[in-house]
Amino acid sequence: MTDFGITAIEAYFPHRYVEQTELEAHDGVSAGKYTAGLGLRRMAFASDREDVNSIALTAVHSLLEKAGVSYEQVGRLEVGTETLVDKSKAVKTTLMSLFAAHGNSDVEGVDTSNACYGGTSALFNSLAWLESSQWDGRYAVVVAADVAVYAPGPARCTGGCGAVAMLLGPDAPLVMETGTRASHMADTYDFWKPDLASEYPEVDGKLSITTYYDALDRCYAGVQRKRVLRQQPPLTLDAVDHILMHCPFCKLVQKATGRLAYNDLLNGVEGAQERYAALEPFRAMPREESLSSKELEKASVGASRELFEAKVSPGLHCARNVGNTYTASLYACLASLLSAGSPEELLGQRVLLFSYGSGVASSMFVMHVKRPVDALARLLDLFGRLERRAKATPAEFSATLADRELSYGKVGVALRGSIADDWILPGTFYLESIDEVGRRAYARKPVL
Amino acid sequence: MTDFGITAIEAYFPHRYVEQTELEAHDGVSAGKYTAGLGLRRMAFASDREDVNSIALTAVHSLLEKAGVSYEQVGRLEVGTETLVDKSKAVKTTLMSLFAAHGNSDVEGVDTSNACYGGTSALFNSLAWLESSQWDGRYAVVVAADVAVYAPGPARCTGGCGAVAMLLGPDAPLVMETGTRASHMADTYDFWKPDLASEYPEVDGKLSITTYYDALDRCYAGVQRKRVLRQQPPLTLDAVDHILMHCPFCKLVQKATGRLAYNDLLNGVEGAQERYAALEPFRAMPREESLSSKELEKASVGASRELFEAKVSPGLHCARNVGNTYTASLYACLASLLSAGSPEELLGQRVLLFSYGSGVASSMFVMHVKRPVDALARLLDLFGRLERRAKATPAEFSATLADRELSYGKVGVALRGSIADDWILPGTFYLESIDEVGRRAYARKPVL
Repeated sequence: MTDFGITAIEAYFPHRYVEQTELEAHDGVSAGKYTAGLGLRRMAFASDREDVNSIALTAVHSLLEKAGVSYEQVGRLEVGTETLVDKSKAVKTTLMSLFAAHGNSDVEGVDTSNACYGGTSALFNSLAWLESSQWDGRYAVVVAADVAVYAPGPARCTGGCGAVAMLLGPDAPLVMETGTRASHMADTYDFWKPDLASEYPEVDGKLSITTYYDALDRCYAGVQRKRVLRQQPPLTLDAVDHILMHCPFCKLVQKATGRLAYNDLLNGVEGAQERYAALEPFRAMPREESLSSKELEKASVGASRELFEAKVSPGLHCARNVGNTYTASLYACLASLLSAGSPEELLGQRVLLFSYGSGVASSMFVMHVKRPVDALARLLDLFGRLERRAKATPAEFSATLADRELSYGKVGVALRGSIADDWILPGTFYLESIDEVGRRAYARKPVL
Repeated sequence: MTDFGITAIEAYFPHRYVEQTELEAHDGVSAGKYTAGLGLRRMAFASDREDVNSIALTAVHSLLEKAGVSYEQVGRLEVGTETLVDKSKAVKTTLMSLFAAHGNSDVEGVDTSNACYGGTSALFNSLAWLESSQWDGRYAVVVAADVAVYAPGPARCTGGCGAVAMLLGPDAPLVMETGTRASHMADTYDFWKPDLASEYPEVDGKLSITTYYDALDRCYAGVQRKRVLRQQPPLTLDAVDHILMHCPFCKLVQKATGRLAYNDLLNGVEGAQERYAALEPFRAMPREESLSSKELEKASVGASRELFEAKVSPGLHCARNVGNTYTASLYACLASLLSAGSPEELLGQRVLLFSYGSGVASSMFVMHVKRPVDALARLLDLFGRLERRAKATPAEFSATLADRELSYGKVGVALRGSIADDWILPGTFYLESIDEVGRRAYARKPVL
């Protein structure tokens, strides 16, 4: 068997969203600060009836149902997340409740975590399992799921919530390229969660941007190094058809596109000197300085506008409409790309992916569309489902997040969120209760 | 390249321990309750100067130093733990500070977790990476590290603290057998950590025992199923030379040995009927009932005494003297086995391993000693180092755990633990400070 890769993909996001223009008005900030400034449109959010376990349950259940794969056919399931409701019991174990009814408990893999990177870690591990001597012939499932919430303040608008589940197996439509993969890992405090009792992170906003650029540079350089080892030609932006990057907010991905263009210029890529002529004045800028230069950032966004519209923007549909989904973010970009335009055109194309998790863990890799993805896109029904959501007011959004604080990390508390259809769609899993010693019970909203 | 496996192993445990007989007296329980009853001898514990990051730093630094491997030669590092000091930033990222000085940031892998199972998950993932098309020719490092502490009460004596780091590569002395591997994963609340602000777990003691036995049965049966698929003969206890099991406390492992013997009897293994004749009366006992039958437990411990002394007890040296080290526990058993008796005798032998993490994730697998392990054992110097520790009184132990509570999960707090040589040995990493936003700084005690 060969061509192990992604054979199906499902994305889940809560039914409620808040409009970023309305949030701007509600927060009393200047119009356009969240939208034009950060590239945001709508943000999904969940009540205390949804947690990382419930959204992962929904995504996995829906993935296997849509793909027509039974629970007995899955030999591995790994979860990437940074949203903890228990410090010991993995999300993976809660997902085993889906398998129990089918008598399959022999399912390798647990949870993997570092900020927004866990989904990629789970993907890498699961693909390696499929290629290993220990593979037992069954599918692997990867789930990336997170609830991204911030304390009241300027970062709150960059939240989001979602889960992406992927089915991995042989003869896959989406296959990872061998050798074109490099990582950059370092000890950094740019985003972290030291207050264990709070759902909110600490963020060093400025550092998180320069660390992202730094990781992007180093992964791109690492890919070149790894390709030399395998006697492959250098990778350039011209050689890929699409670029997907972890998306904390869309504007950062646009700026990072400029950063990649700047890298191609510095690398002496053919044609880059003409195309990115506006970046010539920055060629001699010391690298450290370039990471925080607003002038370079502005010039590179301008110089890479065409590149961004053609190869990056189509992958940002989910990010624009759901917000940051942490570990799921990059794979929501992949789901968006499959759903944008006509999936037939993707056949034979190459997709560059950059995964980033603060702290820091990052990787760059390439996937090939080796087989038709039309069926994947159709089953996803991503754009349609995003349009059919229910809008909430900024006041409802704030009240819902305040309610979440009352139950997060606590035991024996009553849940306040509604389980009516305008919050929890039929077929969706939700949190029923947290008992006095912290045991969580889940139920699935009946499908009529 | 073939024979990917464990090429070196290092175990770290804090310098201070408490004597279980003294703890019995201090706690006012009957003499022998912790020792004869639970099989405990000494328990290692750490002050607030040591956390999961510091013990992992020490283990990795020491592993590479002893093995003579440079940081540039490592292409993957994955951490298994259930001890969180940050919900987002992985222990792995802190370990990257060791690599930074050597200019190597291209090191795949982050943290993986489910109770005591994370070390096994990291081992499986890393071995698969070595076998995969994405392997870049470098070593992988696996670290299992935990601080096991319990609230005052009957479970407190079952704590411990330790880290095991393993170097993985080709042509290894310890190689995993292909196909002899099965897992049992389920949704169970037997041990969990729902109070995020507390370092202490919730435990359903009775359920955690029956779940352990249940997982052991199912993994053993799963191994047989998997071997049939590969047309291999059934696995029996006669076919292995050593048995290592996750060890929450030694008495449980002795009882689990009896459970395995009972399985061999039920499976109709040749000679089992004679050897385990005392278990004949339990042959028809319904399985569910057998999991909690004290009579069966007692009879099977008696019937398997010889098996336990010959194949299990040598692997329990670390567990007896350090206590439970959660994710590191099974690999501390491996280190103990390498250090017990003469390592020359291990050459060519087969070792059965059972990994268990509440919640529940469990796996059984077999490792072969394919090359001499003398050098590994010598570098470990496990027995010698355990003997050279410093004893603390039960009062010091209690006061130290009370101090830990003051800083756990908090920011901007002063640390109270001593960094003198009778607490932190030269060459050991320790926590220097936690700043007002929760950033942790580490230092290494100078080696004279």
